[in-house]
Order: sequence, then C-alpha cells, then structure tokens
Amino acid sequence: MKKIAILGSTGSIGTQTLEVISNSKDKFKLILLSAYSNYELLIDQAKKFKPKIIIFGDISKREQIENELSNLDTKIFYGEKSLNNFFSFTKIDLVVTALVGKSGLIPTINAINNNIDIALANKETMVIAGSYINNILKKSNSKIYPVDSEHSAIFQCINGEKKKSIEKIILTASGGPFRGKGIKFLKTVTKEEALNHPNWEMGDKITIDSSTLMNKGLEVIEAKFLFNININKIDVIIHPESIIHSMVQFEDSSIIAQMGEPDMRLPIQYALGFPNRYKNNYPRLDFEKTNKLNFEKPCLKTFKNLKLAFQAGENGGNAPCILNASNEIAVSEFLKGNIEFLDMPKLIEDSLNKISYIANPNLDDLIETDFKTREYTISKLKKI
Amino acid sequence: MKKIAILGSTGSIGTQTLEVISNSKDKFKLILLSAYSNYELLIDQAKKFKPKIIIFGDISKREQIENELSNLDTKIFYGEKSLNNFFSFTKIDLVVTALVGKSGLIPTINAINNNIDIALANKETMVIAGSYINNILKKSNSKIYPVDSEHSAIFQCINGEKKKSIEKIILTASGGPFRGKGIKFLKTVTKEEALNHPNWEMGDKITIDSSTLMNKGLEVIEAKFLFNININKIDVIIHPESIIHSMVQFEDSSIIAQMGEPDMRLPIQYALGFPNRYKNNYPRLDFEKTNKLNFEKPCLKTFKNLKLAFQAGENGGNAPCILNASNEIAVSEFLKGNIEFLDMPKLIEDSLNKISYIANPNLDDLIETDFKTREYTISKLKKI
Repeated sequence: MKKIAILGSTGSIGTQTLEVISNSKDKFKLILLSAYSNYELLIDQAKKFKPKIIIFGDISKREQIENELSNLDTKIFYGEKSLNNFFSFTKIDLVVTALVGKSGLIPTINAINNNIDIALANKETMVIAGSYINNILKKSNSKIYPVDSEHSAIFQCINGEKKKSIEKIILTASGGPFRGKGIKFLKTVTKEEALNHPNWEMGDKITIDSSTLMNKGLEVIEAKFLFNININKIDVIIHPESIIHSMVQFEDSSIIAQMGEPDMRLPIQYALGFPNRYKNNYPRLDFEKTNKLNFEKPCLKTFKNLKLAFQAGENGGNAPCILNASNEIAVSEFLKGNIEFLDMPKLIEDSLNKISYIANPNLDDLIETDFKTREYTISKLKKI
Repeated sequence: MKKIAILGSTGSIGTQTLEVISNSKDKFKLILLSAYSNYELLIDQAKKFKPKIIIFGDISKREQIENELSNLDTKIFYGEKSLNNFFSFTKIDLVVTALVGKSGLIPTINAINNNIDIALANKETMVIAGSYINNILKKSNSKIYPVDSEHSAIFQCINGEKKKSIEKIILTASGGPFRGKGIKFLKTVTKEEALNHPNWEMGDKITIDSSTLMNKGLEVIEAKFLFNININKIDVIIHPESIIHSMVQFEDSSIIAQMGEPDMRLPIQYALGFPNRYKNNYPRLDFEKTNKLNFEKPCLKTFKNLKLAFQAGENGGNAPCILNASNEIAVSEFLKGNIEFLDMPKLIEDSLNKISYIANPNLDDLIETDFKTREYTISKLKKI
C-alpha cells in the first residue's frame, strides 16, 4: 500500500486524485489532505477518506473544521508553515503536489529533501526552480512523476528508451478557445470567453493560461527541467482534439506518442502507480467517433506568451521565475477584470526586460526574484 | 559488430536492409546474402558488400555468377537446401528473413534451432506455423524482432511495458488503393490498379495483399503469435495516411502509438539494432505537411479476406496455414491475369471450408496442409 498525501485536495487535480485513490483502494492509502480555502469540501473529503492528517490554510476556520471532524482521529494543522512541513507529521511514500502557483515550491523541495516521491501537478515549481530542484534530486532518493497530461505522455513515451536517443519532444496544445484568432480578436476577449476551454475542465488559472498559450510555455520550461533537455529540442504543435497528449521523436526518426480521451485521471493514476498500469474503467478512445486528428503550427506573434516562455526557457537563470511571477499577477488581474487579455503578455515582457537577470540563482535569489517581479508587475498595473 | 545474413536480398526489404547496413557500417557487418532469381542484382550486391557467403536459388546461373565474382573471396552455394542450411556456412548473429511466402519457414526454424536472432520480414512463417515457432523459441536463445512496420510499431510501443497490461493491439491499415470502394467496384479491378498502393513501395505479392486487406489479415495472425495475444484483443483500423504505424492500448486506457513517415528502413534498422536506436537521416515527420490523420472502420463485407483471416486466426490449428497457402495461389493467379479480384476471397473461403482442420498440427501436418491447400486451390482454378 502506497501512503499518499495530497497537497491541494479541493482543486481539480486534488479531487480527481481522490477519485483515482477510491478506484484503487488496495493500492493507495490516503494519509494526508491539505487545502487552502475550501474548508467545506475539505471537511467532506476528510469524512469520506478519514486521513491521519489534514492541513488547512486558514486558521480562522478552526472551529468549523474541528466541530465537523470531532468524531475522527484525524489530526488537524493550520497555516503555511504546517503545509511546508507536511512531511513531518507522518510517514508518506508519495505526495501529490496539486497546489496552484508558487505555493508548491517549498513543499516540493521539502519532499525531495525527505526522500518522498512526488506526483508533480504543480508545474510552477519546475518553472521557478527547475535547476535547483534537479540539483537536490541528485542527493535524494525522491523521484518526480509528472501529472500534467503532456509530461505524463512524454514520460510514458520514453519508458524503456535511452535518454540519449531523444531527438525532440513534441508537446501538443489544444490551442485553447482562441485558436486561429488574430491579435484584433484577442483585444476584446472577456474573462468568460477565456475560461471556456474546448477540451479540458480545469481550474481558472490554468484555463486562462491555456487561452494565452502560457500554459504551453510553462510546460515547455517544465519539460526542459523534468527531462533534462535543451529548449531547442522542444517543439509545440497545436492539436485541437487533445487526443495525442504529446510525443517524443527519437534520433532514428521514430515518433512515440501517447493518446487517449482527455481525462486527467489517467496521468494521475500513472504517476501514483508507476511503473505499474492499473486496470480502470475510464473511457476508451473510439476511433470511429474520434476519426480525425488535426495539427497546425502555433502563431507566436499572436500568442506572444508562448514566445516569451521559449525565450525565458532558453535564457534560463531566473528568467522563467520572472515569467511565472509576472504571469501569475497578470492572470489574477485579468480574472478580476482589471486588465485586458493582451495586457498579459505586455506585463510579462516588460518584467522580463526590467527585472535583473541572474544566470545562476540560488533559492533565495529565486524567492527574491519572485517577490520583486510581483511587486514590479503590480506597480505597472496602475499605468494600464 | 553484429554479423548479419539477409535471405532474400534482392527484394524490397532486402535492398533496404542493405541500405540500412551501409548507413551503419560500424554496427553491422554483412556476412551472407541470398537471392532466388535476380542474379544480376545479387552480383552487384556481392561486389559492393563482399559478403563471406552468397546463396543463389538457381544453379543454372552458376557460370554467370562465378565469372562475375571470380575476384572475390565469397563462397557461393546454390539451391533450396543451401538456403535452408544458411546457418551452417559461417557464424551469424542475426538473419533478416526477407523471403516471400512459405519459403521463409524452414530457414526461420533452422535459425531458431541454431540460436540465431531473426529480423522477421516474412510474415507467412508466423502465419503458417506460429504455434510451432513459439514452441521452439522456448528452447532457444534466439529472439524474433519484427520488421513489418506494424509489428515493429507494436514492438516499440510495448518496450518497457508489462505484457499483462496490454488491453488491445490496434493495427493500422492504409486501406490500400480500393479503400471506400464497394463490391461492385472491386468486381472489375485490374492487376495494375491493385498494384498501385497509395503509401508504400513494396513487392507485388504484398501489394496485392494490401489491396484485398489480406495483408492486414496476415498481420493480425502474425501479431497473435509474435505477441502471444488473443485474436479478440487485436483490432484493425483504417488510417489512410499510414503515419501511425500501429498502437497498443493498455488496461489503464492509455494508448501508445508509433508514428513516422512511411519508410521501411526504420523498422529494419530497429530490428537490426534493438535495443538501440541509431541516429540516421531518414525523413522526419512534418506536422505542418502531414496535418490531418484520419481513421475509419474497415468493411469486412467488402474486404472479405480480412474477415477470413480473423476467423482463421481465431480457429487456430492449421487454419492460418490453409488461409495463407490458398491466398498465395490466388494472388499469383490474379497477378498472372488468370482470375478476377473477387475470385481471391472465394478461393480462400472454399479452401478453409474444404481442407481438413487440424487443431494441434505438427510441422509435418503444416507442410502437408500447405501442399494440399495449394493443390486444392489450383484444382478449383479450372472451374472459374
């Protein structure tokens, strides 16, 4: 029985991870749940799964939570410090980091330093601190299993292959709700339109990132660090049906692709169960229904975030951290209705130009870069 | 340096194998060539590659061959017996069985019994005697590496995976030149039309088999034995672009596919070099050019050969041997212009109904079944 912790259990990945665990109770034992703000759902989850530990972000909800869970043996902790120290409360084999944004960074680092395997659903961690993470992984027994459908696809495609044979990673992108649209169209799109993703049901932040292609850009950087591969060996191709989840081209010209209905439960289950594939009843791809797969090149002029991400990934150092921090502010402000769609790439590009570049940042440098970039991006908002 | 023999070096697979070897002279050493009738090409190949041994089918060409090759150290042998005993002349690590039809059977069996690895391009061997081959493989160190692009694809897709996780093998088929046509159209098609394959340049026999979908049927049976999987776990899907060469669906719903430009040199190189992938300059797939992949269900009523093959594969015993022998006669007669396109499935179905079924045939039973079926099919020709 693998002892599982979920950080961010009330979000889209968190709830689907609980479904995966429910389907394989003989393989996975849920030990720890954490959530940031949705205490009602966390309470429901705790009642159903009876974990040893829960960690909740906001201590002001202490009374409600403890009243509701008074019958359980579950120990309850609060606040960011408890979240960061999740590993200290009980033995955990694998932690699912389904946290949003940079909040995943410290828990992930702590998991690695405590030899806990990671099902990584928090791509920002690798974007912000990929180099640092790879360094500490060398001194740890911890393994990172990707949960993003694209990186899970790549991970599946290279299973059994030699790393040196990889010629190119081909990340597929649905293209989001604005695929094929031009700059003029993007000028006036609303939050509601941007949140209307054609294929995947996801959280708000990642759905906006999909509409700007920043999500793919972050994935390019994530792939660089997860698979230790140069940015120039990573391609993005638009594939509107989201059936091929990504591909790997080898140096003998062969391409291995991973396919299936869009269903996050598969990559979650694969990350939890690797190297085993467990039988499930998730929908199977039906080639009579899905009888056409299309591909097209992404337009980097229109979807400038993707271009900025390629550049930040290429530049390395703290550039991906700047990109990510500025993007988090930009998306948050767009979701609040404070800025327009095309303000997002402008803010990010400006941050990349203005925040000092550090070629070999340490963790403190990265945390400072993140802080400074947010501050800088917020200061720029007033001028929009 | 892997010591390579090619049986059938003047055919399409044979010549492409020589190209693969030319491209990787530091990895593969050509030791032995054999050909059945094209002595002029065999002479050219011998001059270029200077193998230790050549074997030629027809002893009447002895003088021409020996005059031409008098300057080489190559030893030359003639006739079927020499071909069957190719292993006895020199040490060979891997033999490419690029022979047409049942002529591959005995050399393949002998290779297995002499612990020589096999790059199997002769699917008829597995169709005729798959059970027998799998039995003798158990007592041998010999490994079979598939060369058919579909089986190579499957072999690549299951690399690193557990066999018990396979839920389904999905063989792709181009559909051949008559894809989407009905029975009425097929009634009058000519040999020239049938030889006009949309995607692959291959020998005549296999091109006709592609036009009737018998090639896919033989591949279904080959897959059953190569991968030890039930026929009901093998699907065929028409994919006109021949870009996805086949797929494997696992029991967690994930599908792994192998893709690339149609180019037989890749599966040949993979079979020769396994488990290594060697860098080459074969054309890479370009998703901007190949921007649509289509899929459709094959019509088993129109392309009855495929249905007959599924049935023969399901029935097992000597049924696949009957199917293959009758088909070899039927195709040969169609190529001679003696019968019509739709006479082929009729002859094969009749043979399957009339030749005695043997549930557990030994090798002699299979050779007799083959002989009897040919005799029977020929006797039926006169009545067409």
